Amino acid sequence: MSCLTLAARDGAARAGTLHTAHGEIPTPVFMPVGTQASVKGLAPAELTRLNVRLILANAYHLYLRPGADLIAKAGGLHAFMSWPGTILTDSGGFQVFSLARLSTVDDEGYHFASHLDGSRHTFTPESVVRIQEQLRSDIAMVLDDCAPAGVDEAAARASANRTLSWARRACAAIQPSAQLTFAIVQGSTFAGLRREQCRALAELDFPGYALGGLWVGEGRSAGLSMVELCCAELPVDKPRYLMGVGTPEDLLDCIAAGVDMFDCVYPTRCARHALALTTRGRVNLRNASMRDDFRPLDADCACDVCAEFSRAYLAHCFRAEEALGPRLVSLHNIAYMSGLARAARAAIVEQRFEAWRATCSAALLDPV
Amino acid sequence: MSCLTLAARDGAARAGTLHTAHGEIPTPVFMPVGTQASVKGLAPAELTRLNVRLILANAYHLYLRPGADLIAKAGGLHAFMSWPGTILTDSGGFQVFSLARLSTVDDEGYHFASHLDGSRHTFTPESVVRIQEQLRSDIAMVLDDCAPAGVDEAAARASANRTLSWARRACAAIQPSAQLTFAIVQGSTFAGLRREQCRALAELDFPGYALGGLWVGEGRSAGLSMVELCCAELPVDKPRYLMGVGTPEDLLDCIAAGVDMFDCVYPTRCARHALALTTRGRVNLRNASMRDDFRPLDADCACDVCAEFSRAYLAHCFRAEEALGPRLVSLHNIAYMSGLARAARAAIVEQRFEAWRATCSAALLDPV
Repeated sequence: MSCLTLAARDGAARAGTLHTAHGEIPTPVFMPVGTQASVKGLAPAELTRLNVRLILANAYHLYLRPGADLIAKAGGLHAFMSWPGTILTDSGGFQVFSLARLSTVDDEGYHFASHLDGSRHTFTPESVVRIQEQLRSDIAMVLDDCAPAGVDEAAARASANRTLSWARRACAAIQPSAQLTFAIVQGSTFAGLRREQCRALAELDFPGYALGGLWVGEGRSAGLSMVELCCAELPVDKPRYLMGVGTPEDLLDCIAAGVDMFDCVYPTRCARHALALTTRGRVNLRNASMRDDFRPLDADCACDVCAEFSRAYLAHCFRAEEALGPRLVSLHNIAYMSGLARAARAAIVEQRFEAWRATCSAALLDPV
Repeated sequence: MSCLTLAARDGAARAGTLHTAHGEIPTPVFMPVGTQASVKGLAPAELTRLNVRLILANAYHLYLRPGADLIAKAGGLHAFMSWPGTILTDSGGFQVFSLARLSTVDDEGYHFASHLDGSRHTFTPESVVRIQEQLRSDIAMVLDDCAPAGVDEAAARASANRTLSWARRACAAIQPSAQLTFAIVQGSTFAGLRREQCRALAELDFPGYALGGLWVGEGRSAGLSMVELCCAELPVDKPRYLMGVGTPEDLLDCIAAGVDMFDCVYPTRCARHALALTTRGRVNLRNASMRDDFRPLDADCACDVCAEFSRAYLAHCFRAEEALGPRLVSLHNIAYMSGLARAARAAIVEQRFEAWRATCSAALLDPV
């Protein structure tokens, strides 16, 4: 049985429900990022109150600190971080590629030095399966080989084929459990290669598929055309997860292309830089005009931050370097991104997605 | 009518209720510090959930940033920071003395340069009355002249007498309103001088009295004997507030001496340094033993942090530099300090304060 039930389709956009060991997730869904078992500055109960039911954590970070053994001893990641909802763990391939030092990759896997203390480690397709089993996440990702943006087709093919062969090895290593494992489609911006990878991975019958190696510098329109191509190619009854994406505009366009799941540090990173996301575009709380703006961040938002605090108070918190500023804006920004995905779902169910998307996009360009 | 109703006395210790425009406050009470209109990292709703009903803010800081005019425009400090409970504002005399640059004091008041931008300002007894009226705090403090620890008696007397004359000027400047203004007893560690000040200030019939210039380097036993002396001297029907104090041990000893109100950054500052306050003493979350200690911070604590998170998880947050660590431990530490004052009150009401205090003190020295 598929872990995804589709409720409606509107053009290429899909509304569904993802079935996991820790609950049912309406899709499209935006996943807040809790890399190190903490969504920057926010408590699990606050996320639950925003109707967030699915968050992301990272196997690379957690393996290095506090260690997968320790989390297993705590009873798994849900117990360790006190999160009752669903958890997807990224395998850490991209983090080894982007964060670890002295990293080399061969057919066996990655050999790297920890970015924390320089200690040497190896990640193989099999070892990251085991690490994520220890973490007891609901959704695990296979190890993938990320090619940097701008590689030539031969290099992209080598990297994609290694990812495919690692997916086969991961398949063989997985112990039966309620954990779902998603494969990752690589192939840079080469349409033929992406298509081949989609087909070959589909044959392995993973519960879900992620699009990797996109939004890494290839340019937005090149990335978007790869998303459209992969969504057309991947099995319709399996969830599609676009890794590390994105902004409100990215969500609108990629939901239109058929993506079901997103994750990005964007809302929390913006919050730390005093940028609030609203239905009328970004609000920079460091602007002088915010000092005496007693309106909420977003008059159309139902979150606690918009109910309780003014832009003027939040602007004061940033100017005074009070930790409450980034915390409250993070909460609002996650409410906004989650709400955007939920509103998209409602529009798809009601077969008015394109009209909704056009209104939404226009409002983003019309600040008040 | 007095703003304090005494419910019980046990030795010199007192249990009462403080009546303010934003609610009734059971005393003894520990006030969390929200210097810049934010209790470091915590949201008002969280404090309410801990039964915190009274917090402190600082007129010096708020006058400089965001400005008393701006807060008045927001409808006052309660509206600005979204805090439904009671607020006491310190006048800022101590902050001018300790933070401002190029500060000079004369009979008119303080002349100083802002620690933020070097701009020149003057605080007079009358101007800080007006500033706190703009802030609309429930309890305002008079401007006082703080002498540093270790001054000779002549200097201490000059400073105390200036504070007394400023208290008279503040009295004359106060507009009738629901705001309560407390006077401040200075006099360093000179018993006769402190006694004179208490008597002279009592004649001015302020709604409450604060003890200033203590715990500033004079030594704990010297400070404590001044507290005992002042509490014996001040009118029994008025609240006594010991400014800037203190640790759990300080609360136990000063409640015994007859103090009703405390404020200190201690619980939030400890939290930022990974120190949790518990019924069995301080727990350092950076200790290696915390890595796999899956117990709550304090098995006897009813706060949400102790219900949801282990020492191991909190230790991980500190090691991983996740903002959730200081935030959660701040919440617990404030729950602990507030709870300590509440437990003292219950013991006083039940006429078992000394036995309770002995048990409490012994437990603090008995870590588990």
